[in-house]
Amino acid sequence: MGMVGGGIGAFIGEVHRKAAAMDGQIELVCGAFDIDPEKSKEAGKLFFLPEDRVYGTYQEMFAAEKKLPEGERMDFVSIVTPNHVHFPVAKAALENGFHVVSEKPMTVTSEEAGELVALAGETGLEFAVTHTYTGYPMVKQARHMIRNGDLGKLRKVVVEYPQGWLSTKLEGTVQQATWRTDPKQAGPAGAMGDIGSHAENLAEYITGLRITEICADLTTHVEGRPLDDDVNVLLRFENGARGVMHASQISAGEENALRIFVYGEKGGIEWHQHNPNTLLVKHLDRPMEVYRTGVDHGGYLSDAAMHNTRVPGGHPEGYIEAFANIYRNFAHTLGCLMQGEKPSPEMLDFPTAKDGLRGMRFIETVIASSNNDQKWTPVK
Amino acid sequence: MGMVGGGIGAFIGEVHRKAAAMDGQIELVCGAFDIDPEKSKEAGKLFFLPEDRVYGTYQEMFAAEKKLPEGERMDFVSIVTPNHVHFPVAKAALENGFHVVSEKPMTVTSEEAGELVALAGETGLEFAVTHTYTGYPMVKQARHMIRNGDLGKLRKVVVEYPQGWLSTKLEGTVQQATWRTDPKQAGPAGAMGDIGSHAENLAEYITGLRITEICADLTTHVEGRPLDDDVNVLLRFENGARGVMHASQISAGEENALRIFVYGEKGGIEWHQHNPNTLLVKHLDRPMEVYRTGVDHGGYLSDAAMHNTRVPGGHPEGYIEAFANIYRNFAHTLGCLMQGEKPSPEMLDFPTAKDGLRGMRFIETVIASSNNDQKWTPVK
Amino acid sequence: MGMVGGGIGAFIGEVHRKAAAMDGQIELVCGAFDIDPEKSKEAGKLFFLPEDRVYGTYQEMFAAEKKLPEGERMDFVSIVTPNHVHFPVAKAALENGFHVVSEKPMTVTSEEAGELVALAGETGLEFAVTHTYTGYPMVKQARHMIRNGDLGKLRKVVVEYPQGWLSTKLEGTVQQATWRTDPKQAGPAGAMGDIGSHAENLAEYITGLRITEICADLTTHVEGRPLDDDVNVLLRFENGARGVMHASQISAGEENALRIFVYGEKGGIEWHQHNPNTLLVKHLDRPMEVYRTGVDHGGYLSDAAMHNTRVPGGHPEGYIEAFANIYRNFAHTLGCLMQGEKPSPEMLDFPTAKDGLRGMRFIETVIASSNNDQKWTPVK
Amino acid sequence: MGMVGGGIGAFIGEVHRKAAAMDGQIELVCGAFDIDPEKSKEAGKLFFLPEDRVYGTYQEMFAAEKKLPEGERMDFVSIVTPNHVHFPVAKAALENGFHVVSEKPMTVTSEEAGELVALAGETGLEFAVTHTYTGYPMVKQARHMIRNGDLGKLRKVVVEYPQGWLSTKLEGTVQQATWRTDPKQAGPAGAMGDIGSHAENLAEYITGLRITEICADLTTHVEGRPLDDDVNVLLRFENGARGVMHASQISAGEENALRIFVYGEKGGIEWHQHNPNTLLVKHLDRPMEVYRTGVDHGGYLSDAAMHNTRVPGGHPEGYIEAFANIYRNFAHTLGCLMQGEKPSPEMLDFPTAKDGLRGMRFIETVIASSNNDQKWTPVK
Repeated sequence: MGMVGGGIGAFIGEVHRKAAAMDGQIELVCGAFDIDPEKSKEAGKLFFLPEDRVYGTYQEMFAAEKKLPEGERMDFVSIVTPNHVHFPVAKAALENGFHVVSEKPMTVTSEEAGELVALAGETGLEFAVTHTYTGYPMVKQARHMIRNGDLGKLRKVVVEYPQGWLSTKLEGTVQQATWRTDPKQAGPAGAMGDIGSHAENLAEYITGLRITEICADLTTHVEGRPLDDDVNVLLRFENGARGVMHASQISAGEENALRIFVYGEKGGIEWHQHNPNTLLVKHLDRPMEVYRTGVDHGGYLSDAAMHNTRVPGGHPEGYIEAFANIYRNFAHTLGCLMQGEKPSPEMLDFPTAKDGLRGMRFIETVIASSNNDQKWTPVK
Repeated sequence: MGMVGGGIGAFIGEVHRKAAAMDGQIELVCGAFDIDPEKSKEAGKLFFLPEDRVYGTYQEMFAAEKKLPEGERMDFVSIVTPNHVHFPVAKAALENGFHVVSEKPMTVTSEEAGELVALAGETGLEFAVTHTYTGYPMVKQARHMIRNGDLGKLRKVVVEYPQGWLSTKLEGTVQQATWRTDPKQAGPAGAMGDIGSHAENLAEYITGLRITEICADLTTHVEGRPLDDDVNVLLRFENGARGVMHASQISAGEENALRIFVYGEKGGIEWHQHNPNTLLVKHLDRPMEVYRTGVDHGGYLSDAAMHNTRVPGGHPEGYIEAFANIYRNFAHTLGCLMQGEKPSPEMLDFPTAKDGLRGMRFIETVIASSNNDQKWTPVK
Repeated sequence: MGMVGGGIGAFIGEVHRKAAAMDGQIELVCGAFDIDPEKSKEAGKLFFLPEDRVYGTYQEMFAAEKKLPEGERMDFVSIVTPNHVHFPVAKAALENGFHVVSEKPMTVTSEEAGELVALAGETGLEFAVTHTYTGYPMVKQARHMIRNGDLGKLRKVVVEYPQGWLSTKLEGTVQQATWRTDPKQAGPAGAMGDIGSHAENLAEYITGLRITEICADLTTHVEGRPLDDDVNVLLRFENGARGVMHASQISAGEENALRIFVYGEKGGIEWHQHNPNTLLVKHLDRPMEVYRTGVDHGGYLSDAAMHNTRVPGGHPEGYIEAFANIYRNFAHTLGCLMQGEKPSPEMLDFPTAKDGLRGMRFIETVIASSNNDQKWTPVK
Repeated sequence: MGMVGGGIGAFIGEVHRKAAAMDGQIELVCGAFDIDPEKSKEAGKLFFLPEDRVYGTYQEMFAAEKKLPEGERMDFVSIVTPNHVHFPVAKAALENGFHVVSEKPMTVTSEEAGELVALAGETGLEFAVTHTYTGYPMVKQARHMIRNGDLGKLRKVVVEYPQGWLSTKLEGTVQQATWRTDPKQAGPAGAMGDIGSHAENLAEYITGLRITEICADLTTHVEGRPLDDDVNVLLRFENGARGVMHASQISAGEENALRIFVYGEKGGIEWHQHNPNTLLVKHLDRPMEVYRTGVDHGGYLSDAAMHNTRVPGGHPEGYIEAFANIYRNFAHTLGCLMQGEKPSPEMLDFPTAKDGLRGMRFIETVIASSNNDQKWTPVK
């Protein structure tokens, strides 16, 4: 794998490298880690890369890598830049024949995202978007149970994503805060783009249902911040289910408390990202059950949950493992393709460009809804 | 105290009696427990009442009790009938000079509620509405801390009240379900009236803020049910804070999971009714603190929280104790009035007719909002 | 009911009164609340008692009450004095024909306790000892499931009772601390008598097994304290099960964290007093189940658990309700006896004098074991 | 790094490889993965190793690697065989000049462990023993706070390690169970060696105190099992603190529920391995605090906790990350040594051969205590 972005001090690039490395299936072989070529080199050294595989720009990288023999050149590129750079890099990668793993939100506009979906389709290249939270085994278990009809017809979905780290004006001081609140780098949405898009992805992934109409209220609470830092949305789903989503970066004292509650005619599920190895399964007339991640829980966990689990029950798996599931499934998918095999979409499941496009459309609809006086705005 | 309603098999009447009895301050002296006078008598026997203090109707009761000498006659009446009977009984009580404790929702329309507020004002009689959940010590602690500015200016409020017991069509079979889903007895709102009104009361009580605008989506998921069983609402508060409320009686597998999250500029609080003796207090830059009910926690709990606590930390207090706090504070208030003393509104705090009226207006606004296409509907 | 002890400021007397009053089955009719007759009178006034039913001494009380006609005189006495007074009062009560509810530990020596057991047997009077924690519905559920063989043969029991309130030398300053650490009033054991005896009672109640051998280590950590404040014990049960008990009043920062874990061949249970409405039920090959208190949980709860429950699931019941279960079952038992009916031991279950005697023997064995060099000391 | 053991299907070898790979600091370059050379080769292929670096025996491996030039040959060996093979491999590694990472328990006897400690001392080679649980950031935080005097003088320690997976006789069927219950492969202790040794290590690591005397009761509950499957021990610490340890593999329904409670004069801490990113900090007179792992929690976390953390708060880190902390700190220590720098023992902390020896002595003392009639057995 090659990497664009993710130089020294970058949070998410480091996570991508750890996630990719963990299972011994993926090797970082090259990168363009920083706009500043000197910093890029410095980073490459830290990652034990040979100097000639550390590039000044992504354009250079794609041009050079393309010329290397198969088996030596990178198989895919991991894009971990600020949001506004996702699109040009991903486009160039696809045009040069490289598979792509891209950070979310996939692009800055749904138009760009649509272009990438089309390009991926034309080239036949794989494109993953790191909506990390669907990588957790218990999220896959929840999806499996709902698909399987264990909850009956779904009626209500509550998805919540409170964070508190932007309660004060960190932008200008803290790098992570600066670009995420700058429309030029982050795109048109703040909290909505950064974490609301994860919430939407999680809700549609688990339920298997499309959100068809929304009513949104975006707010900026911290003075002088140009993007929203608080999101409240009423949801209507295609099958008649209703619900709410809220996400915020001004929920003072909260860490990264993504959680979801889904209720159907026959039961409910509850999952908290802070406690990701537990899935609460609720029933109408008998005690709630506590499902737990574990390679020794094959007696009741689905194949998909088991496939994305590494250790026995009670040995906590965390965020990096969820991330690594995306990389591992992506790598295995590429492996299948190389060997002419058909990858199992159930087992080697990861969020694709289509999910990324869906996310961009949802973000844009939330902004539109928040700006208009109409009660319900359809999500296309 | 006298009681109207709450005969054998009634859930909430039994709770009122236990709550009133617990602290040894209030004695049940008479009642009209059932529309069927025979059943009323039977109930009176069970409650160790003399036959001549068990009445066939509330009208009879008020007439007879009025004639008894002070000290012997009931001081106040507790109304625990289905919703549509609250108003006539309360009105008659006030007109006959009796203080009132009424179940919620206070009435079936805000007009009725307004009439009772006016009547209470004119007569100078006390009127409590049993919004039980504000009786918990940790709810009072949360209110105290917010008033005190501990969280700074408030920005976000999330109040949630999932129940699951009406996931199937129990009405017709289970008495509790039958009247609560019958518009003639329950009034125009289902889940919204039954539990949504508690959520509203809790949110305004804790924050000290008025909800000024809402956007609501009421749904009936169980076929053939004439009232809503699911409530989703966007909230805007007078100070610019935003939030969501959702309540439901079709959240399959949930018990009575009322919970609230409030965030301000400096911190946040979280409270769950299932675990009522704990208040989570969140800070921007230091570890979350776990506040706990306990008569030995005077070192950090507010006077109001302490006043509504009975036992040391780690001896759980529950729903009946929260209920008893309303009764105890009401009784002490009457005691003060009898002795010409001024009761402390902070210490002897209980929900009043004004809170009940507020609740009725909120219910009506939610219904109106849900029925119109306008995004925001003001709450008067 | 009459009461001995429990004057103004006494913690546990107040709890007894609330517990007895809650269900409307028991009325406080007389008392000798304090050694100081003036203080006793003052207390009686607060409890709305007529002056002539407030006595200077328990001897006076028994003599006077005995002369009153049945129906008017107290039916039983509740003893809530410091430990060393339990015995003489209980003895006098039985000798004068009154049933007894006594605080724990039942007496100061097992000899005294044995004498009371014998006397109760001879007189045919009922004798309850308030080992409160077995009054919780989920404790009764755990006992039921174990009796029913749901866990298979038991193998391991861990019972823990950490408190922290005596981490510093409160005695001399705080009344509760003073008598509980004074051998003259508390008896020969400190933490062991005060809370270790609850832990023993809970373990034997839930498992239905006798502890047959122990190895104990009692410690006093706070300088100058004459009694133990920390207890650690290895346990061996009659059926070969093993385990540990530890209890402490110097576990700084703990409230009243009694908890128990029982494991058998087929599963396990876990119960925490801080969260008393939940019973965790663990299985070998399927997800843990979360049993919950609730009058609407008759689908899976035992008759005994249901009988000791007052409200639907999600309306927390607490310490006072557990206490009230002892009183209610005791009162119903007396009611049966008065009407010549046989009370159901399963439904009207409460801790008896025999449990109190068992507790005293256990306390004495722990002290003996702690003082000798022998590994195992049998519990008689 | 080279690896001995850990072929296909081995649980812990796979974990070691993931932990070593995660941070991009350590590369697996060779191995002798199985006693069967064919299986070893097969494994090597899976791990993308060149054929000539996959060896039939560890002796071969050490001989061959030694001849390779520095920078190419492995720097250290990771030993992940069944227990009885740890010693000969580790000895050979040290004798051939290789640093060692060894699974625990370090050896089968304390004599062997002592020999390795001496050999490591003589050769100046580094020796890590993977007592994984001390790799968690919150465990390091607890140690820091206790060292810092935040809890005052320690008084009580409770360490618990319930597992349930050996509740039935899996040995003979499940490979993991077979060798762990076979004295020839596991050594003289069952549950005590496998998990009790972790509990001891955790308790002494966090408290900084030596256990000086114990009283142990080992039991075998599953018929026909030659080693203990349940452990109960009274503990006395060098400073006068007391406590209990219990560990079990027959606690039916438990996963890997290692937890520890430590109390001092001024406060207490509580940590659960199932929820490893949380450390509960308890105080005498103010609310409990909830410390949380996170690279953004430098405001209150110690340097050592921060150094062993990878992601911001609310992004759960788990078992593999704790394991990776041992590897990363070990690798950085080797890096320092190679560059002639002195590694910081605080920052680059990992369990050493001395901890392994301590563990072996403790295991042997528990067995001795369990077999004798003496109350207290000193731990040397």
